[in-house]
Parts: sequence; structure tokens; C-alpha cells
Amino acid sequence: MELFRGNIIDTPTPDALRVLEHGYIAVEDGKVVYAGNELPRQYAGCHVTDYGDCLIIPGFVDVHVHAPQWCNSGLGFSLELLPWLQNYTFPAEAGFADAQFAKVEYTRFVNELLKHGTLRASIFASRHCEATRTLIDTLESSGIGAYVGKVNMDRNSIPELEETCEESLRETRELIEYVQAKHNPKLHYILTPRYVPCTTPDLMRGLALIGEEYGLPVQSHLDENRDEVAWVQGLHPECKSFADVYEHYGLMRDNQTIMAHCIHMKDEEIALLKQKNVLVAHCAMSNADLASGIMPLRKYLDEGMWVAIASDMGGSHTVKMAEHIVDTIKSSKLYWVYHPEYKPVSFSESFYMATKSGGKFFGKVGAFEKDYEFDALVIDDSSIQTMISHSLEERLERFIYLGASECIRKRYVSGKECCYPLASEE
Amino acid sequence: MELFRGNIIDTPTPDALRVLEHGYIAVEDGKVVYAGNELPRQYAGCHVTDYGDCLIIPGFVDVHVHAPQWCNSGLGFSLELLPWLQNYTFPAEAGFADAQFAKVEYTRFVNELLKHGTLRASIFASRHCEATRTLIDTLESSGIGAYVGKVNMDRNSIPELEETCEESLRETRELIEYVQAKHNPKLHYILTPRYVPCTTPDLMRGLALIGEEYGLPVQSHLDENRDEVAWVQGLHPECKSFADVYEHYGLMRDNQTIMAHCIHMKDEEIALLKQKNVLVAHCAMSNADLASGIMPLRKYLDEGMWVAIASDMGGSHTVKMAEHIVDTIKSSKLYWVYHPEYKPVSFSESFYMATKSGGKFFGKVGAFEKDYEFDALVIDDSSIQTMISHSLEERLERFIYLGASECIRKRYVSGKECCYPLASEE
Repeated sequence: MELFRGNIIDTPTPDALRVLEHGYIAVEDGKVVYAGNELPRQYAGCHVTDYGDCLIIPGFVDVHVHAPQWCNSGLGFSLELLPWLQNYTFPAEAGFADAQFAKVEYTRFVNELLKHGTLRASIFASRHCEATRTLIDTLESSGIGAYVGKVNMDRNSIPELEETCEESLRETRELIEYVQAKHNPKLHYILTPRYVPCTTPDLMRGLALIGEEYGLPVQSHLDENRDEVAWVQGLHPECKSFADVYEHYGLMRDNQTIMAHCIHMKDEEIALLKQKNVLVAHCAMSNADLASGIMPLRKYLDEGMWVAIASDMGGSHTVKMAEHIVDTIKSSKLYWVYHPEYKPVSFSESFYMATKSGGKFFGKVGAFEKDYEFDALVIDDSSIQTMISHSLEERLERFIYLGASECIRKRYVSGKECCYPLASEE
Repeated sequence: MELFRGNIIDTPTPDALRVLEHGYIAVEDGKVVYAGNELPRQYAGCHVTDYGDCLIIPGFVDVHVHAPQWCNSGLGFSLELLPWLQNYTFPAEAGFADAQFAKVEYTRFVNELLKHGTLRASIFASRHCEATRTLIDTLESSGIGAYVGKVNMDRNSIPELEETCEESLRETRELIEYVQAKHNPKLHYILTPRYVPCTTPDLMRGLALIGEEYGLPVQSHLDENRDEVAWVQGLHPECKSFADVYEHYGLMRDNQTIMAHCIHMKDEEIALLKQKNVLVAHCAMSNADLASGIMPLRKYLDEGMWVAIASDMGGSHTVKMAEHIVDTIKSSKLYWVYHPEYKPVSFSESFYMATKSGGKFFGKVGAFEKDYEFDALVIDDSSIQTMISHSLEERLERFIYLGASECIRKRYVSGKECCYPLASEE
């Protein structure tokens, strides 16, 4: 039993922040057993870790991020998606054939996640088996909780990244066994077909079979860019839509699928994602950086879709979820300017989509409710306080908007403190 | 004579970065007398300050920023402009009636500018005379070059900020004399009518006369928000447009006027701003944070208007110009999604608008051309380098996109190193 004290803020529901001034959280076996303003009698006399005037908030959850792209992030944004992949992303990912390169860069990447407070993530690795093992090991050392998958890509990439369908499926199985042998409840394998243009029908079918065999989740990209959508339609005249390609080949797994972007969706695709309870990874910053468009966020929320915020780094330039919370709000406001029927999202809605909404993919994660994993950031915001006295809600808002990652003092995942920074591998 | 060596990057023209790998800059009396790849014979034997593999770039120029708003930045963005002013901005500015409050907060603000590399700025103070003197003194200690004005506002604010027209004009004169008595070539007074709804016709006329008497520049706000535009039209039926109110009352001074936002402009307003060679302060982040809209940047550039990037903090949440360079590019891409006839701005165009374009308002500032002030940032980007070898252009792009202000190692204004950080006043 551990007790924590501080100014506790989370979003059990999206419509408002819950604030417990100088409140208590009791944690048992890594899970929250109590959160409230008073210390219940049965815990009297227990040791309290008192974080004084600090804020205690849920760790950030990033439901879509590319581990091999930090080494090249912020580059090539004069291009749209397809030429950017070809000229920047694929060449950068080719470097991960080299085990030492992967070790150095994945350590940097995981340190970036920790630095900025991402404690759960659903991660695309490169296509390389050995490098992906390194990434999994690095995540394990850090204490971060993650879904990780090597990307499967047996068509339309560059020669250095080519793999055959057989190779891709074999290495996927190897990595599934590698993760499962760890028996680490925070680390999971996720099937990661890169996106339709990069995966042959045979590969998609093969992955679907593996998915059924092991009961695995799936992550991919959907309806990000107009040229991409047109390309997919050309490649798959047998399917009604981009989303339908995944469905047709067995990769839309009920409650277990993350689709990133989902900007240019037809009504029937929206219906399909709702029916399958797909998690939409909303990547507002990436969608601006790569000139992809603005996802109709309010429309999807009104439809009752499951949406969470994601960095999509390197499609965006940072893993810092605080900036993605802000960009989600900003892009919903700009969308509203052009579509006044869809009102912008609020701060609490955006915070919810960066914590509890994505957290559901990981179990009971992203809030301090009973039985939830104790995933927490301890925020010492004294460096951004001023002579104006701000409420706790305002202090959180300033931490998010001013984006000062150096305010993060502690990081806990399932009750255990993360190791940060990881030692450099250079 | 001083010599500097490093990887020099600037934008003499907006269409491309100029890169001098391991180049030299010779500085005399604070001004650039030479920049190039070779050390000219006449300087042989002179001492060289060698910044090795660092980048040397022009200091950032922020042509529109509110000094009293850092203490409250990042708050109230669920509101649009008018209620945000009333509920957040005005109450925060009221605090600057207190001299000690002003001293602490202005030191923080100036440290924020320095931290993020803003070396020239055109600044709105609060309406208070003593606090504005403190701001001017603090800027002087820092070495930053600035235009500063107390805001004039004799209608439609809150009781704590009320001033009469006479008071406003008298204090303006006092501050003009105060700045001029310093004989500091880097510090200038700028007339700062808050915006039309806050300034009576008498006040505007009075400021125009002072402008003529002293030959002073003017800064204000224009066409930021639809409700604001409608309000101005209601207040001034004698004028054809919002811009025409400033013109009508003598505040559109040729080549000496900065107007912030300019989102919702009529064609005749565009024509007026062109005719007067008004500097348009483009505040992309603020315009998203306050849901004001997207300024048609490419259209204005095509029209040959003078446009520079500004933070508008606290209308946006940060003074960090690197983020504003990025947000300018992102917002121009989102504008393009809705108006495909206006292509997004490039990285070099955006960098130019955060250095040389705004720098013109300050004289020869913002590039390393002959006779330009030596305003420079020395960037040690080793902490964001990776195992991929990046070109100098790409290293600059990563510095801007990854936004790591801790990479800034030195700051020079007119050849003199800035004092950073200023000692806290608490």
C-alpha cells in the first residue's frame, strides 16, 4: 500500500476536470484503490509520499507514434505524405538495419517520450526484427507501457526496406513470441501493417490469421491524404473504400484496432469504424505539418466515435503530448471557422483525449479512478508561476500550454517509478 | 573590428536560405562589414571568435507582443477575443498599477524573450506610466532592441484600467521624453492606441498630433475577429472600414505603422495598407488560440504587402518565435486545404518573416548583409543531432521545429552580447 498526496487532477469524463486540492491517492499492486480529498481512516498511520503543492496528473497516452523517426523529425515538411515517405521517412528507417544505430536512436526516442511525460504509447517500429527487439528491451528498461509492432511492408517502399511476405510474417511471429516470453503486463505486441499501399493482399491476409491465432490488436493508417486515398482506390477496386480494404482482409478487429488520421472518410467508413469500435488516432499537428487537412473531430465525437490524441511523430515534429493537446484544440477552432456547425473542443475534452480516452486501449489507464493503473506525472510548475494567483485548473492549463517538460518531476507507470533518463548508448 | 566564425545561415531574400559553411562575419561598430566563406586578406591576423560547428543565425524579430500578458498566458482560450480581453487580459494588466508587481513580471517577460532568442520586439505595455518605465529600463539592461509603447485606452475597458484622454496623452508624452533622454539607439517609443473600440476619437486625434510632432511610429490591432469588426463598424459609421478609422484619425503613418492580425480585410483595406506600406504583423498561433481565423498570408505576399511574423503573446501562449515560424507554415498549409489557389509558405519564407522582414522596421536588421546590425544567435544543436548526418539547412530546420531554446548559446544585438538571464526581481 502506498499513499500519494498532492493536487490531483484528471478527467473521469471529458466535459470537466476533476480537481482534488491537496488530495490523496492510495495505490495497491500498482492500482488506484482510493482517490479523494480526505485520508480514509483505514490508511491512517501509513506512510505518505507528499508532493506538497505539486500537481499530480495522469501520464500521457500517445496512441500513434513512429519510433524510428525521431532521428529525422522536423524535416521534409515541404512535401505531402507520399513524397515525404519516399524521400525522408523510408531512407531514415533504412538505417535501423544496423543494430548499433538502432540501439542509440531508440534510446534517444524513449528518452524523448519520458522527458515529455508519455507513459503509454502504441508504437510503429521499422520493419527490422533485431532493431524492434532492441526497442522492446529499451521500453522495458524505461518502465513505459507500450504496444509495439514491427511495420509490415512488402510493396511500394525503397529497395533498402524491401521484405517478402513470408519474411514479414515469419519475423512478426518471432517478435510476438519475443514479447510474450517476457510476461511483462505492460508490453504487448500489436500487428502493424504500414498502410494499404505498402501491404499486399497476401500479407494482409497472413497478418489477419496471426491476429486471430494470438488474439492480437492491429494498428495502421487510414484516409490521411487525398493522393493516398486515390492510390488505395486504384490498388483495390474490389473494395468500397480505404477502410473497407482493412475490413475485407480481416484487419479491422473489434475493439482492438487503432487507425491513425481518418481525415477524408466517407460516411460508410465512419459507420464501419463505429461498428468495429475502432480507436481513431487524431494527429492534428501531423495533419498540419504534412498539409493533409483537418479531421472533423467534433463530428466524430458527436457520432460517438472513440477518438484519442496521438503525436504521429515523425509525421509531426515532436512527441510532446502537451503540444498535441494544444494543437488539437487549435485545429478544432480553425475547423469551426470553416464549419461553424462543429464547435471547438474544450481544454478538458482535449486533455481527456490525451489520457483516459487512449488509455482505454491499455486497460484501465488514464485517470485516478478505482482499479485504474497508477500512471502519474508529478508536476512542479513553480518555474512558470507568476505573481497572479492561479487556480489549480489554470495551473494545469499553463503547464500544458507553456509546455514546460522540465516541470515534470516524477513519472509512475502502474505504481512504479520510471527510470529517466536512460543512459545514452553512444 | 571583431571576427566571428561558424556555420552562418540567413535569408537575404525569402525564397532561399543563404548558407556559409564555416564562414566568417566581420563586425565593426556593431555592424556587419563582411560575411562570406573566406577570411578577406585585410582581416588576416585579427582575433577570431570561433563558434566551431555551431550555427550562427539572425536574432528573431517579434513585431507584436504584449509584455504584461506573460503572467497570464495560456489562459482563457475557451473564449473569443472580446470576452477574453474583458475576463482575462484586462484584469491581468490591472496588476501593473503596482510597481513591484511590474518589476517582477517584466523581468520574467524579458527573460522569456531572451531565452527563446527574440532580440528585437515591438511591444505593448499596459496603460501604466511607471510600469512602462520599468519595462523600458529592463529592456535596456537586457540589450534587446525594442519599440515600446504604453497602451492608450480611454473607453470600453474595466474600471481598474480606466484613463482619461488627457491623462493618456500626458503620460504618453512623459514616456516619449523618458525614452528619448536615454539616447539609446536600440530603444524607441511607439504610439500604441490599444485598438479602435478602446480609443475615443479625441484620443486618436491627440495621438496623431503627437505622432507628427515627434515623428513617431504607431502600432495597433486590425480586423482580428468578426465580432470586433462589427463592433468597430457600429462605433464608427463615419468610416468606410476598420482600417479607415485609423486612417481617418491620422494613425496610419507611412512606412511607420504596424497592424496586427489583419485577417478579415476588405479589398479597400488591403489597398490602404499597401499604399501606406503598413507592416502586417501575422499572428498565426494567436489566431488559432482565439479562434479568430486564418490570415490569407499567401494572398498578401502575392499582393506585395509587407508581412512579418509576431507572437502576439498573450493572444498566443508563447513568445517563442521558433514555434511561430512553424505555426505560420502550418496555418498556411491549412489555409491551402480550404483555398487551393494559395500555396503554403516555405520554410525559408517563414524564417525570413521572423528575421529580415520584421527587422526592416528596426533599420537594417535581420540578416548578415553589409551594413546590417550584427544581431545574432549562436546555436549549439549537438543535443538534437542524431546518427543521421544532416545538412546545415536541415540542422536549422530541426532547431526551429524541435524548438529547443536551450540550444541558444549566445545572443548579440548590434554586436554586443546580451545579458541573460537578468537577475530575478523577487
